[in-house]
Amino acid sequence: MNNMARRDLRHIWHPYTQMEDCREFPPVFIERAKGLKLYDDKGNFYYDTISSWWCNVHGHNHPKIKRAIRKQLDSLEHVLFAGFTHRPAVLLAERITSVAPRNLGKVFFSDNGSTSVECALKMSFQYWRNTGRKDKKKFVALDRGYHGDTVGAMSVSGVSAFNAIFRDLMFRPFRAPAPYCYRCPAGKERGSCSLECINPLEAILRKNGSGIAALILEPLVMAAGGMIIYPKEYLVKAASLAKKYNVHLIVDEVATGFGRTGEMFACDYVNIEPDFMCLSKGITSGYLPLGLTLTSDAIYDAFRHASDRTRTFYHGHTYTANPVSCAAALAALDIFREEDTLGRVRDIMPIMRSGLEDFRDISIVGDVRHIGMIGALELVRDRGTKEEFPDGRKIGLEIYKAGLKRSLILRPLGNIIYFFPPLSVRKIELRYILETTRSLIMSASRHCKGRRPEAI
Amino acid sequence: MNNMARRDLRHIWHPYTQMEDCREFPPVFIERAKGLKLYDDKGNFYYDTISSWWCNVHGHNHPKIKRAIRKQLDSLEHVLFAGFTHRPAVLLAERITSVAPRNLGKVFFSDNGSTSVECALKMSFQYWRNTGRKDKKKFVALDRGYHGDTVGAMSVSGVSAFNAIFRDLMFRPFRAPAPYCYRCPAGKERGSCSLECINPLEAILRKNGSGIAALILEPLVMAAGGMIIYPKEYLVKAASLAKKYNVHLIVDEVATGFGRTGEMFACDYVNIEPDFMCLSKGITSGYLPLGLTLTSDAIYDAFRHASDRTRTFYHGHTYTANPVSCAAALAALDIFREEDTLGRVRDIMPIMRSGLEDFRDISIVGDVRHIGMIGALELVRDRGTKEEFPDGRKIGLEIYKAGLKRSLILRPLGNIIYFFPPLSVRKIELRYILETTRSLIMSASRHCKGRRPEAI
Repeated sequence: MNNMARRDLRHIWHPYTQMEDCREFPPVFIERAKGLKLYDDKGNFYYDTISSWWCNVHGHNHPKIKRAIRKQLDSLEHVLFAGFTHRPAVLLAERITSVAPRNLGKVFFSDNGSTSVECALKMSFQYWRNTGRKDKKKFVALDRGYHGDTVGAMSVSGVSAFNAIFRDLMFRPFRAPAPYCYRCPAGKERGSCSLECINPLEAILRKNGSGIAALILEPLVMAAGGMIIYPKEYLVKAASLAKKYNVHLIVDEVATGFGRTGEMFACDYVNIEPDFMCLSKGITSGYLPLGLTLTSDAIYDAFRHASDRTRTFYHGHTYTANPVSCAAALAALDIFREEDTLGRVRDIMPIMRSGLEDFRDISIVGDVRHIGMIGALELVRDRGTKEEFPDGRKIGLEIYKAGLKRSLILRPLGNIIYFFPPLSVRKIELRYILETTRSLIMSASRHCKGRRPEAI
Repeated sequence: MNNMARRDLRHIWHPYTQMEDCREFPPVFIERAKGLKLYDDKGNFYYDTISSWWCNVHGHNHPKIKRAIRKQLDSLEHVLFAGFTHRPAVLLAERITSVAPRNLGKVFFSDNGSTSVECALKMSFQYWRNTGRKDKKKFVALDRGYHGDTVGAMSVSGVSAFNAIFRDLMFRPFRAPAPYCYRCPAGKERGSCSLECINPLEAILRKNGSGIAALILEPLVMAAGGMIIYPKEYLVKAASLAKKYNVHLIVDEVATGFGRTGEMFACDYVNIEPDFMCLSKGITSGYLPLGLTLTSDAIYDAFRHASDRTRTFYHGHTYTANPVSCAAALAALDIFREEDTLGRVRDIMPIMRSGLEDFRDISIVGDVRHIGMIGALELVRDRGTKEEFPDGRKIGLEIYKAGLKRSLILRPLGNIIYFFPPLSVRKIELRYILETTRSLIMSASRHCKGRRPEAI
């Protein structure tokens, strides 16, 4: 074991990690990074095909972002954000509201995706109270949704191995089925369906709308829930149902924001006006922690009052609007324009699309999903019945380990292998990633055939 | 109104801020900072007497921290922290465990104080489950405690205007009275008491200990609750009660850590072994967001298992252990040694102490509290009866506004004026801060006398 890995294991508890596994399979020690490549201390490199948990947008070690951070450090690294303000926050608020859905004119800062969601939930909850609708205090969320790991964010995520045991700490939202086309909750087929999957959501809103503050969802891509990519019509209908039943719509664009889907935001595919938008991850291109909660002037106005202090939104974090993080975010947004990032994405999307379609002929690939630069493969034991592997994790882990030997990070979501590369990925890199993964999954598929199913 | 302030108000929603107030009293636009001074764009400066919400330790624009951040940017700005590790995280974990209470050998990373608390709560909760004690799932917290604004952290904070309206989202802890000597919950006087204030806590633990996972508290200083500084004996006794009733002790050193109290951690004043320690704020000297949750090997071990995945701690944030934030933290810890920060603190503590004691003769100063470099003044309408001002906020706000005109940031906690300066504060600066504040409070006091009480 590498000496630094040994030292790591003496003191560090890694996120989402069964630390017992690390004894046999210690963390890879990364010394530096450049573009898509993460280098270990022996000179090996790994393609960061999942953008270091979906946050790196413009590649590692980008000179422009570094320069912006360095420059900011020379003037102001941090100042409390109540009673005081600073240039990077003002410029970032102007810039982000200029690219977000046009009704979202106000920005609240925090430090990560979980806190950006907590802010939206609390703001929505308090809005109704401030406007005399104390009864509107429940939330609606989707099965398989994921919004973070703090108690509030966890409460509106789908029930999973990640959070089920913490039930006694969480509040209970209403939950509607996920629009998971491959395993349609209404037993239909996409192409011939009429969005029957949304009926339970409508029923919840119809029956309980007067007691509901907000509906929260990830637009178009349910990321941690299995890279479930769902029809735009579902999003449009969900937004219109929220309006109809007077319920806020919170769109969590933490994973989908900043060009991943081929548009700046997943919401840009449709013409909707969410009441809240949560951002993080790609906002700084993955350089530094930052979260934003965008909302409308109308919601902001309900918190303003000359004398009633109970209307105030009493929420904050020490590092709120950290100037260095804001400067990184501004540079990351600049790069979208300077490098025509969205243009590049449109240019390479066909490679992603056709590369992914090529996986369909592998016997263990049950479903192929893609939008923009996000692609996912759902592995199954039987394509006909869509039967899952008895322990989906195992085959994912096998492919992950094989990937590392071929310079790829294919960190699976259970039985889902997915691609979520930085948007700066070059065509030759993307082709290598897709082709190598294809050969790894082909090999896993052959391997499966040779074994008794129980052993997989 | 300053042009940047106007632009700010068009889009930014500030934390803990009644935005309506900003129309008359817009945020101060800060352009740069150096040492203790925050400069606006007109060349005015303000002493950052509260360390930008208690996070700045070594002064603004510190060359060593800047250098460390710059250097880190050239190798690795970020990488996902599951399956991978990096030098700044390993070195920081080694360094922090070497200065923390010796039983705390393991480190879990997150992004701010709220998340560091959420991690401790969830780890404690899951620990008991992993060890077959599913019944231990409640928490005990102190009235007037403050642990953050996410739903979990808010749930274990004292009930206040900040969080009361969110009750339906929160889980319910047991709550014990705060050891608030000036307004003793047991009606005693410090000096002649026998810590009667802890009896209700003991009663809760005695009666419900078998159903309780953890007791959470801020050691020695309840910061946001009013800079309540309490006897070391209370902390010792609380720790021993937790042990006696087999309940974890979570110490939230987010505000008190990193030399504020005169020791590296408030816990260092006493000989206790907490099960969890939450850190943030000063960890990076306020440069970049970072949170840490420290725990013991015994607790960590209860999550390790070769086959039972439900034992795993499924929690994480994208920016977990961000290398740039870790590099800043390492530099901040280096400075403690290189500049003998704790030695300097011991050297200036007497100025803080005697300066604060001088406030006792002002008629509206009801209580004077201090420990290390933290000092607080509780303003009252009547010293004899300890009667509060009908609207404590107003007099605090008046002093805050007057302070800004004298280059001081005296952001009050209701009717509490407090000092929480960077530890790099120079003697001459500290004297100016204390003396100027004294003259401001004297003047407010005279002002109070001249008005009918109702008008204050």
